[in-house]
Amino acid sequence: MYDDRIRCAALREKITSAEEAARLVNDGMRVGASGFTRAGDAKAVPIALAKRAREANEPLRITLMTGASLGHDVDRVLTEAGVLARRLPFQVDATLRQAINRGEVMFIDQHLSETVEMLRANQLGKLDLAIIEAAAITETGGIVPTTSVGNSASFAILAERVIVEINLAQPLALEGLHDIWIPGHRPHRDPLPIVRPQDRVGQTAIEIPPSKIAAIVLTNTPDSSSTVLPADEETAQIAGHLIEFLQHEVARGRMPAALPPLQAGIGTIANAVLSGFVSSPFEALTIYSEVLQDSTFDLLDEGKVTFASGASITLSAARQKQVFGELERYRDRLVLRPQEVSNHPEVIRRLGLIALNTALECDIYGNVNSTHVGGTHMMNGIGGSGDFARNASCAIFATKSVAKGGRISSIVPMVPHCDHNEHDVDIIVTEQGLADLRGLAPRERAQLIIRNCAHPLYRDLLLDYYREALRGGGQTPHQLNQAFAWHLRLAGSGSMLPDGFGAVPAAEARRA
Amino acid sequence: MYDDRIRCAALREKITSAEEAARLVNDGMRVGASGFTRAGDAKAVPIALAKRAREANEPLRITLMTGASLGHDVDRVLTEAGVLARRLPFQVDATLRQAINRGEVMFIDQHLSETVEMLRANQLGKLDLAIIEAAAITETGGIVPTTSVGNSASFAILAERVIVEINLAQPLALEGLHDIWIPGHRPHRDPLPIVRPQDRVGQTAIEIPPSKIAAIVLTNTPDSSSTVLPADEETAQIAGHLIEFLQHEVARGRMPAALPPLQAGIGTIANAVLSGFVSSPFEALTIYSEVLQDSTFDLLDEGKVTFASGASITLSAARQKQVFGELERYRDRLVLRPQEVSNHPEVIRRLGLIALNTALECDIYGNVNSTHVGGTHMMNGIGGSGDFARNASCAIFATKSVAKGGRISSIVPMVPHCDHNEHDVDIIVTEQGLADLRGLAPRERAQLIIRNCAHPLYRDLLLDYYREALRGGGQTPHQLNQAFAWHLRLAGSGSMLPDGFGAVPAAEARRA
Repeated sequence: MYDDRIRCAALREKITSAEEAARLVNDGMRVGASGFTRAGDAKAVPIALAKRAREANEPLRITLMTGASLGHDVDRVLTEAGVLARRLPFQVDATLRQAINRGEVMFIDQHLSETVEMLRANQLGKLDLAIIEAAAITETGGIVPTTSVGNSASFAILAERVIVEINLAQPLALEGLHDIWIPGHRPHRDPLPIVRPQDRVGQTAIEIPPSKIAAIVLTNTPDSSSTVLPADEETAQIAGHLIEFLQHEVARGRMPAALPPLQAGIGTIANAVLSGFVSSPFEALTIYSEVLQDSTFDLLDEGKVTFASGASITLSAARQKQVFGELERYRDRLVLRPQEVSNHPEVIRRLGLIALNTALECDIYGNVNSTHVGGTHMMNGIGGSGDFARNASCAIFATKSVAKGGRISSIVPMVPHCDHNEHDVDIIVTEQGLADLRGLAPRERAQLIIRNCAHPLYRDLLLDYYREALRGGGQTPHQLNQAFAWHLRLAGSGSMLPDGFGAVPAAEARRA
Repeated sequence: MYDDRIRCAALREKITSAEEAARLVNDGMRVGASGFTRAGDAKAVPIALAKRAREANEPLRITLMTGASLGHDVDRVLTEAGVLARRLPFQVDATLRQAINRGEVMFIDQHLSETVEMLRANQLGKLDLAIIEAAAITETGGIVPTTSVGNSASFAILAERVIVEINLAQPLALEGLHDIWIPGHRPHRDPLPIVRPQDRVGQTAIEIPPSKIAAIVLTNTPDSSSTVLPADEETAQIAGHLIEFLQHEVARGRMPAALPPLQAGIGTIANAVLSGFVSSPFEALTIYSEVLQDSTFDLLDEGKVTFASGASITLSAARQKQVFGELERYRDRLVLRPQEVSNHPEVIRRLGLIALNTALECDIYGNVNSTHVGGTHMMNGIGGSGDFARNASCAIFATKSVAKGGRISSIVPMVPHCDHNEHDVDIIVTEQGLADLRGLAPRERAQLIIRNCAHPLYRDLLLDYYREALRGGGQTPHQLNQAFAWHLRLAGSGSMLPDGFGAVPAAEARRA
């Protein structure tokens, strides 16, 4: 049975139940699980582990590392069962988020390219166990990943033992899509040989000694579908500003006509903006990104994108059915890589990517907060945005200029948490407009960001802050006693607007 | 005349005075000048330009780009003459600093690896003129740099015209020391082939069409000597903590016995700490850094370091005389590279450097301010610290725990300017001790930094802040209304200590 899925016959005797496999997990273990942006996550063993923990009389708490976020409420279920002592490097689950913000789960928010680099250097301790979803196991015991590679390859290589979840709901046709290349140990390491998004430099399966595979669990559940919202008026405006900017860049000879390869972060705004390229004049685009969302396939279908490289494929339910139902249509235009390759500074700098990521808020000098609501409470994590922004040839951060019907301005005097600083942010874009910060001093950036990107409701308030700050002088003028007044007002009154401005209905805020 | 210094005979007719050469500069030009950490700077033409500007009736203001800081008060003289409209990417001059902080000079504080990358991509406008100090011009018109490469090679390649300052005070023996490798245009670029600090991959001179050399000026002035202070009790303690930490890393199998290649930033603390390795048990060390200071030559002399790669050599007066007087002793153990190669993310990540840089202050969560006094006033600039910290295998930031006799704590509740955020900082070390932040959540980091790194005078005050912040919860607890209370107190009363703690004499603070 399952000859096509487990081609190494000797391994078929490792087939067991999720419950049995979950017994391989002990209290205090470090466990690496597959899964990147809800794609290719281990679906059965973590849930069985949570069940075991709930029923156990002994503590069962682990360090869980993944590629990025998981689907199927796995993080919620594990959190509720009290299994998570530590979690890295990214998450998007509401229940886990609350536990993190209560200080119950220690969350290590990392650049996504760095987790396995640190593991390999023995900086995060020994990895006891890997739980990897696979489409198949090859004749030689190689693990064929499914819809994400993420950190799976290095987890499997570095872990003492490996549990494989063969997911029958994932098409066998996924085999061949992956390009598994693993860097050597430092300081003796060769260059990463990728010079174009379409370069294949590794293997199509994760090669490990078959003896490390301690259990195989069969599952039959599709990935959770993506949660991104469709484009709206503001995201269309953001896309419009960006496309106009990029056309100018080409006209000025700063970028080739087909643009440098594109990266776009996870989420609604980046997805919607990328979709905006469908109706742009650009042709022969390439994508070198981490997550490939619906927008990538819109662009492939329209012939706008000739090749897309990523670490995962995360799609809406409808797109999932279509894309995985006709993978042959896309096969020669797609590759999935380990996230340390998709997000590698070496490749990002070499290719000179255009990196598009989302800001929670940014300040008048171009510093970006991607992670911390109110400067204190974790939203999701920095993800790959730092890997890309630091090394891209053009680092763009997009956000709507206001949130909560105008009660929150995304442009603030000072960010209370800084994930991307002024040295790394080239472009800020909102539905209001775009600020090109390259080669500008902070005082110049402030005026540009306020004028071009801030919502009219907040423009004068920001100018007031900036003008008063100027009286104190400096390269980066600030009023330290007022820098967070807006955030404190929001916490107190529910709005960043001062008394008298009143609440602003969403529609009105949008029209203003 | 000067047959050995200008070996391309046709170019000898380009010899002219600094005053004549300075006439090639017009108002509004973008000028790239050699010079990195006071080494190999253009010494005559900028001064002649300042003289011309002072005497002119017309405006003469330029954008000046360099490698990093200049010697010989060039930035002061240019500032006083009103020549500097824009300045990038780094400076250390007191007069220029004041003009920057008054908003009179637009200062663009950049990662040192990025300036010529942006120039090459036409993101900073066209470079009109390069002024490059050279030891010689070869038979084919190649420019042999002196004590720094910095951005000189790309400036000469990208500028429309080039002025060469042949400095007779720089030994001809410098020829052969340099390794000029320039990346291609993106997105079609090959890997940077350096896999060991000692790899030579380029040319020993900057090859440009000789017809671009518009003038040659002869000078005879040594580099300004370095301004670093000798090691003291605290820097020796910092070095001690670091060496102990690194020994543990080797013992735990996290680092090879000879350690990964070392980088150390400019300045007294990094230099003193590096000197501390002379009496360490480490052998066969290598250096892959930007500036090579006295400490590098101490380590070469002691046989502790087998090879050192940098972008410049900046020495004390005595060391200058000795090293440049007997260059043959060091020749096969040294290389000078363009700063985009010495600081390249690709090489830094590949070699897995240990990066040691200085913090102005850091906060309880490990965010580092390297540049802005009080969050507003520019000190020097970020320099290469971001290039190194982001991509190193171990990013260390060192600072004394207090300044100004204890009136300033270098560990603060929140940094009012963030150059290196929590995602990039692995180790904080002060004379009090060392905090290893790798794999820790913010709440864990806070306790470690306060306990290990803060001065006893401030430890309880930091704990008070942290405990009160915990009441609000979050991944990174803060009291936004108190986050900058210490900086405001310092601005008001001259001390971060609350009333009643009084001023603390330096000697007492040190003993405490």
